[in-house]
Amino acid sequence: MALEDLKQRLAEIHDLGRAAALLAWDERTMMPPAAGPGRAEQMGTLASVRHRMFSSDEIGSLIDAARAEVDPAAGDGEESDDAALVRMVGRDWTKARLVPEELQAEMARASSIAERAWVRARGDSDFGALLPHLELNVELCKRFAACYEGFEDFSVSYDALLDEYEPGMRTSQMQSLLGDLREGLVPLVADVTGRGEIDDSFLRGPFDQEPQRLLVTALLEELPLPEGAWRLDPTTHPFAISIGGRDIRLTTRYESDWLPTSIFGTLHESGHGMYEAGVDQALARTPLSKPRSLGLHESQSRLWENWVGRSRPYLDRLLPRLRESFPADFEHVDAEQLYRAANRVERTLIRVEADELTYNLHILIRFELELEIFNGTLELTDLPEAWNARYRDYLGIEIPDDAAGVLQDVHWPSGAFGYFPTYSLGNVIAGQLWEAAGRDIDDLPGLVGAGEMAPLGEWLREHVHRYGRKLTPSQVLERAGCGALSVEPLLAHLRSRADAIYPLA
Amino acid sequence: MALEDLKQRLAEIHDLGRAAALLAWDERTMMPPAAGPGRAEQMGTLASVRHRMFSSDEIGSLIDAARAEVDPAAGDGEESDDAALVRMVGRDWTKARLVPEELQAEMARASSIAERAWVRARGDSDFGALLPHLELNVELCKRFAACYEGFEDFSVSYDALLDEYEPGMRTSQMQSLLGDLREGLVPLVADVTGRGEIDDSFLRGPFDQEPQRLLVTALLEELPLPEGAWRLDPTTHPFAISIGGRDIRLTTRYESDWLPTSIFGTLHESGHGMYEAGVDQALARTPLSKPRSLGLHESQSRLWENWVGRSRPYLDRLLPRLRESFPADFEHVDAEQLYRAANRVERTLIRVEADELTYNLHILIRFELELEIFNGTLELTDLPEAWNARYRDYLGIEIPDDAAGVLQDVHWPSGAFGYFPTYSLGNVIAGQLWEAAGRDIDDLPGLVGAGEMAPLGEWLREHVHRYGRKLTPSQVLERAGCGALSVEPLLAHLRSRADAIYPLA
Repeated sequence: MALEDLKQRLAEIHDLGRAAALLAWDERTMMPPAAGPGRAEQMGTLASVRHRMFSSDEIGSLIDAARAEVDPAAGDGEESDDAALVRMVGRDWTKARLVPEELQAEMARASSIAERAWVRARGDSDFGALLPHLELNVELCKRFAACYEGFEDFSVSYDALLDEYEPGMRTSQMQSLLGDLREGLVPLVADVTGRGEIDDSFLRGPFDQEPQRLLVTALLEELPLPEGAWRLDPTTHPFAISIGGRDIRLTTRYESDWLPTSIFGTLHESGHGMYEAGVDQALARTPLSKPRSLGLHESQSRLWENWVGRSRPYLDRLLPRLRESFPADFEHVDAEQLYRAANRVERTLIRVEADELTYNLHILIRFELELEIFNGTLELTDLPEAWNARYRDYLGIEIPDDAAGVLQDVHWPSGAFGYFPTYSLGNVIAGQLWEAAGRDIDDLPGLVGAGEMAPLGEWLREHVHRYGRKLTPSQVLERAGCGALSVEPLLAHLRSRADAIYPLA
Repeated sequence: MALEDLKQRLAEIHDLGRAAALLAWDERTMMPPAAGPGRAEQMGTLASVRHRMFSSDEIGSLIDAARAEVDPAAGDGEESDDAALVRMVGRDWTKARLVPEELQAEMARASSIAERAWVRARGDSDFGALLPHLELNVELCKRFAACYEGFEDFSVSYDALLDEYEPGMRTSQMQSLLGDLREGLVPLVADVTGRGEIDDSFLRGPFDQEPQRLLVTALLEELPLPEGAWRLDPTTHPFAISIGGRDIRLTTRYESDWLPTSIFGTLHESGHGMYEAGVDQALARTPLSKPRSLGLHESQSRLWENWVGRSRPYLDRLLPRLRESFPADFEHVDAEQLYRAANRVERTLIRVEADELTYNLHILIRFELELEIFNGTLELTDLPEAWNARYRDYLGIEIPDDAAGVLQDVHWPSGAFGYFPTYSLGNVIAGQLWEAAGRDIDDLPGLVGAGEMAPLGEWLREHVHRYGRKLTPSQVLERAGCGALSVEPLLAHLRSRADAIYPLA
């Protein structure tokens, strides 16, 4: 009975979380501009009420009592849903009680102030204006991490930060994985970027918004998203969010002068959306129904964006639609030109505009700098210099000013240290899953080229989505027959695509 | 200090209420259709968490302690905001504790089931299919009312029902007021409807949606709504809702074959929206910031819809815009024709389609039947017959079937007995406020005709909106110099408009 009571409480907390998600979606898509300050209060209230409800003594007692009631294993040898629920909620509750509410409030306040300072600092390319705010964020993150002293096998400050975005993953694992990635990637980028130029001028428009909207909506309609359970809206910084397993909100941006933003961005967000929609309905309104590993989440978006969307079969299928939507731009473009343009590699300054190959170098730079900040070997005053040096090293480019350098991302101003590496983790996982799906599904490229996306959707649902938050990335990969986490499939994919796009002379 | 603690708790409960409002708005404007069941769970959770937080012992103790701290009077002789807050919240808390949570849950469940049964019953014009659900609703409402035995001067069951929609108003007052209205209205309708026919065929289109949207948006832009603090979306059953004082959501419906629906409907909802936006910002995030009297609320929507929107100066100003938006339909229509068509009086079956004059008779019929149901003189089995008899009596029309008769409204299936009379109360109040505004504002009709709406907006803000929930309708009217509640201004307005539209031979 404690288990049922616990579930009832958790369902309420879950519902409040979904309401908070709607407030967030609305703020970025629909909300009248003058409503901002009131919305911030509402978001703050939802967060603190949820925190208070969850971290209460009562929930702690229910967890203890429920632990005795759960059946550890499901019939099939797997951990039962109830056992997983109690285990995970117990861990969440312990974590929630380790960090004082005042510290959490202080972090929220500091990040909100720093984000505003960042907008100005970036505008003026003035790192010094952001520096005191960054220093406070780092200080607060260190205090946050210190709360976890003795928790599980956490051994460095960064473990606690990483665990917020990638539960269960340790710094040393991530270092080893992304170290392997760097070893493979730096020489590959140096090699590929020496192989000549590709013309992508036909992707630069100008393109009207409405035909873009119609086109990407048609692309979404052929994906295995549940019918009548999603919508697409324009926004400035695209994202996907779910208000429920049957209420998926996708967003995109329509750029007049760069068509790939809406096309591949929408495919990207649809991957996040399919993940949220694919969670086993039996887990609905429990904490297990919300995927938590950002690496797994990103693997789903990247898989649809890059492995599917930028593949030759998908683009071959896309070309006639592009000709229909934008006849003047595409009448003289052939399939090979489109494939090459959609996969052009270039060493550029800005992460969010980077191609599939160089993208991970942007992430590696940030991850390595974060580690140095938190192990005390890099002072924040030296951060711009360290940033610029690494861009020279890994990407061979010079940073013209801090706005296009260390000030480009919101993550550090918002206090989100530990977030960046999950982007590359997502690419690594996507590479492994795609390889396994290709083994299991007969002629996957042919199906993609025919617009038959259901088999891939079903495979992902079966091997990834349905578990919700139950499994870690390593567990998902192992059960899907991918073995341990490995960068090799990603590197092989990037190499083979680079060779197709930039044939060696 | 108890007062500050109380305000902090109430602010959180208020924010959860605003989140619930966003869930409701989204459900009716944006939500993907498959999301319905999950949304119902979310709405239920928000309601029960709010109820639990508000009706707690802790809030009760804070109210008691705060009572000793508040300054009873503001400097200007008015009740201070804090005193009003503690008084009103004390009353709400006492009321919330009188009704057992199980009864509230049972009422919510019954109304949800009855609403679904109603959709089918109306489709089949089968009152018998709804009857058992209505009986349960009435039974539950009686149990609800019985919880208030001995509360204040409540003397009949209907007092408790009415108080939910019109706090502080008693059945006897409403009976006396609407009795006066009936005395004036029945002969006036009989008189006017004998004076001949008016041609309104040019309002019947067909009209495309997009030019309608552009037109009503332009109309909204000249109203004194705060800038950047509202939006307009299409929906099936239009409504207005506020997510915050600077976050007003208006909705409307675009009918191809009846242009007045979008034009006057949008003006109507804008009146609700201006009310919510006009509450004193000092009351933000307190229960005083949410107007509660449905009569006052309706007075604001009706005032903009009918006193402004259907007035000759407003329509004269509208005509060139109509000609611009729909040239073929309006090129041969003159100002007099538009004025008459927009105010055509007809004895019809359906309340929501009724004109300004006959509308109140539809309300009176429902109010009188509700009273008979709750004082035990009318059995629900006899309700259709009683309905039809009153329509014959007051409106001189025969009801062809129950779908167009007793089954037309959702209010009774949803258990909302006591709601209907507030519609007419709103019209009564609007009549009084318009008269007072006309005395205070120099050449109000001229200003309306010139599109200068700010003086009226400011007058309403000053005399109605800013108080939020602080004052009852009677107090608002008294302070605005309107004297006691009286139907005479409304009747005078209706008579004078009827005489202008249907001149006596």
